[in-house]
Amino acid sequence: MTTSKQKRLKSDMGSSTADRITVRGHDLVKDLIGKVSLGDMAFLELKGRLPTSKESTMFNAIAVTLVEHGMTPSAIAARMTYLGAPESVQGAVAAGLLGIGDRFGGSVEEAARILQEALGGSDRDAADLDELARRIVATHKERKRPIAGLGHPVHKPVDPRAERLFAIASETGYSGRFVELMKAISVEAAKTHGRELPVNATGAIAAIASELDIPWQVSRGLAVMARAIGLVGHIQEELQDPLAAEIWSRIDEESSSQ
Amino acid sequence: MTTSKQKRLKSDMGSSTADRITVRGHDLVKDLIGKVSLGDMAFLELKGRLPTSKESTMFNAIAVTLVEHGMTPSAIAARMTYLGAPESVQGAVAAGLLGIGDRFGGSVEEAARILQEALGGSDRDAADLDELARRIVATHKERKRPIAGLGHPVHKPVDPRAERLFAIASETGYSGRFVELMKAISVEAAKTHGRELPVNATGAIAAIASELDIPWQVSRGLAVMARAIGLVGHIQEELQDPLAAEIWSRIDEESSSQ
Amino acid sequence: MTTSKQKRLKSDMGSSTADRITVRGHDLVKDLIGKVSLGDMAFLELKGRLPTSKESTMFNAIAVTLVEHGMTPSAIAARMTYLGAPESVQGAVAAGLLGIGDRFGGSVEEAARILQEALGGSDRDAADLDELARRIVATHKERKRPIAGLGHPVHKPVDPRAERLFAIASETGYSGRFVELMKAISVEAAKTHGRELPVNATGAIAAIASELDIPWQVSRGLAVMARAIGLVGHIQEELQDPLAAEIWSRIDEESSSQ
Amino acid sequence: MTTSKQKRLKSDMGSSTADRITVRGHDLVKDLIGKVSLGDMAFLELKGRLPTSKESTMFNAIAVTLVEHGMTPSAIAARMTYLGAPESVQGAVAAGLLGIGDRFGGSVEEAARILQEALGGSDRDAADLDELARRIVATHKERKRPIAGLGHPVHKPVDPRAERLFAIASETGYSGRFVELMKAISVEAAKTHGRELPVNATGAIAAIASELDIPWQVSRGLAVMARAIGLVGHIQEELQDPLAAEIWSRIDEESSSQ
Repeated sequence: MTTSKQKRLKSDMGSSTADRITVRGHDLVKDLIGKVSLGDMAFLELKGRLPTSKESTMFNAIAVTLVEHGMTPSAIAARMTYLGAPESVQGAVAAGLLGIGDRFGGSVEEAARILQEALGGSDRDAADLDELARRIVATHKERKRPIAGLGHPVHKPVDPRAERLFAIASETGYSGRFVELMKAISVEAAKTHGRELPVNATGAIAAIASELDIPWQVSRGLAVMARAIGLVGHIQEELQDPLAAEIWSRIDEESSSQ
Repeated sequence: MTTSKQKRLKSDMGSSTADRITVRGHDLVKDLIGKVSLGDMAFLELKGRLPTSKESTMFNAIAVTLVEHGMTPSAIAARMTYLGAPESVQGAVAAGLLGIGDRFGGSVEEAARILQEALGGSDRDAADLDELARRIVATHKERKRPIAGLGHPVHKPVDPRAERLFAIASETGYSGRFVELMKAISVEAAKTHGRELPVNATGAIAAIASELDIPWQVSRGLAVMARAIGLVGHIQEELQDPLAAEIWSRIDEESSSQ
Repeated sequence: MTTSKQKRLKSDMGSSTADRITVRGHDLVKDLIGKVSLGDMAFLELKGRLPTSKESTMFNAIAVTLVEHGMTPSAIAARMTYLGAPESVQGAVAAGLLGIGDRFGGSVEEAARILQEALGGSDRDAADLDELARRIVATHKERKRPIAGLGHPVHKPVDPRAERLFAIASETGYSGRFVELMKAISVEAAKTHGRELPVNATGAIAAIASELDIPWQVSRGLAVMARAIGLVGHIQEELQDPLAAEIWSRIDEESSSQ
Repeated sequence: MTTSKQKRLKSDMGSSTADRITVRGHDLVKDLIGKVSLGDMAFLELKGRLPTSKESTMFNAIAVTLVEHGMTPSAIAARMTYLGAPESVQGAVAAGLLGIGDRFGGSVEEAARILQEALGGSDRDAADLDELARRIVATHKERKRPIAGLGHPVHKPVDPRAERLFAIASETGYSGRFVELMKAISVEAAKTHGRELPVNATGAIAAIASELDIPWQVSRGLAVMARAIGLVGHIQEELQDPLAAEIWSRIDEESSSQ
């Protein structure tokens, strides 16, 4: 199928023969099923190797944080879709995931991009973090844009998830330069804007994902994979104790009346 | 917002106050982050309680089996979507999940439905499994429909994943009536059709998910949540070593030529 | 790229060279843009040829019927998704379309399947429609399933859209055997169940789509393509006068309170 | 359901009573079905009123241009999804639409944004178009970003669709300030970069959609609604003459081999 000018289609994700299924270089049946947890499998998919014990603790902590957030727009969209297409659980989950965009879960991507672009060069270790933080806060102020990863409308004064994740990062050795920069940005933003702007869960996850060398372009994927789990939970609740029809009926009635 | 005739909108999935996030009755920050793994969190979402050690082993084994299957139609769809919409990782994952339908991952739903409908009544323990298996095989033969959960085009004579999952089910105490019925269906189908029709991974997962009391209507969700992880892996590979443009170019060239 | 055992990848939908774009055998620039309407283009996509004037009237009438239904679950899902991912109009429309499933728009598929399976053989014209209708109603009664395409919770005693579509079918010559069978099923169902069960919009569309030789497997696609238009309308309204945040806030508040 | 602090949920898209369905203020059955075409219905959805004859010609021309582009990544994703989930036409179309993102159809949004931001003020008519064009080209050069709406890898030296659309714009009175600015940008970009950079179909559509007062934020929706039609066409072809399994098989075989 290949000719000289064609790029070879090669993937390292997985392959099968009659008696062996290989995932990321591991024998699925002998080495993974029954031996590794789902979270460690996710680490393997992203990093190409199984995690150490500390990496596992850190990575699972991030993922667990992202699974469930109650009746979010994403959960409502999934339930509405399930009402119309009960034959297609995949469609309901997909509909829910489509809302993990720029405004919600997607902000982890923005925060990770800022951190990785700031510390991406070869002089990562030499960089003056306070100076970087100042520049980042100033640029955002100039463009009148909020800084992703700071502040929270509900969790005040601090986001307890961020505190917990940072504590685990310290214990597992992941409190490195990205985490320090994220915290420095928070300090600098507070000075500039004259109010507390603590790192929120999104900011903590962006920093720690950067420590784990996860490219910012797929960091939003962490929220997506975790939320897929949460959405299956919502669909199961909807199956057993439906809310979607009631929500629809109220909205329809109110919006149709003159 | 409620009036007498309105159904109360009530969800047990999760909720937040300023200093506490609750997921399925647990304090997310104190009890879950850093303490439970992603797979156990998924169990919590579906069952409303954390798993025992044996439940955790069994549930994670199922989930791990479903994460990665190489360059499936689902992975190709996700990569194609990422090519067109690189701003939207959630869209690429959603597109990939939409292919987890009746033909592929969805067959777990069909197999679970057969098992749960057969053993759903109060006399679950008293039922004659061989008799049930005979009836199920006969009904499918009559309607000329293949039985979900049996046989595999590639993994012959046996599906090594099914064997491994059944072995773990024995070790963890999940080799109950649903597993026995699935195996009896395989034996009966082999007799009826005159060829080996071993239980495949889908059949094993359907049987074990039924042991875990997961309703067949959401059993497809197990494949969906696990595959979301695998699809994020494919998108990361696509980001680093793109294949989609080459695939598109070959297809476009061949299909456009006269 | 092809070898002897490979199937040739050939598509008749469209292709391009440096100075010509061909769609379904027509020169897009010379023959279609500015000369045919969007509805006729849709007919071309599905039938491989442009419609006659009567075909155009009939096909556009069906499509127009399906565009907008107010604040449906599908529209709510699209708006919720847009709230989370305003960067991705395609994601919001996709989320909305995912609810056009078995319960809502998908019922056109079920009705079209019944009609096409009943009249699919070579003796289409000879078939005794009343006898077919009796058998279809009896089979559904036996299986305790409602008949797709009959009755409506809101539009009583008749669905004015169905009446209008049938009138246009008469005028344009599309009131053939499929339409007659659909009406016969309604008459028979009323006798069997002892209450009026008039053909609804879905039933009329299924019958007329069958007259147009559209396979039942893609008849749901008529609803999908039309609703995509309606959903873009809803997203534009959401952009200009947002409702999603208010809906979310009410649901979240009520479902979180104890 | 409303309290004093709640925003009223009000939508002008559509509503129903027992005997009347209203869409954008029109009686669906009396005024729309059988009287307006699908394209005019789309205009009504977006603009809140039916088009004049000239508006209809212009709007339908744009929409028709966007329906079908052959075996694009979007069409491949839809076919792959249909292979896995044949029960869900809506899922296959949704998967295809998800690829109408930043890289492909989404560029119409970028081009429309540039035009509308440049000419958005009250002094729209007084603005010096050449000066605006120079500034836009210079800004893009400075940021090393290509200008959306110019050039095409296949259609050279000109994109025949753009020429045709601009000709129709002249005939129908839509060749106003936005069209002029788009053309001025092309002239200026050619000077700056020393090569022909003619307006492509995307650029023409962005300019004309701006003439029609369609907000840039939903201009991508024009591509989405039109492509939904094309994708239903691809799914029908896939149903009748399947390609997806062959594409999958080739990719899987090549990517799995060592």
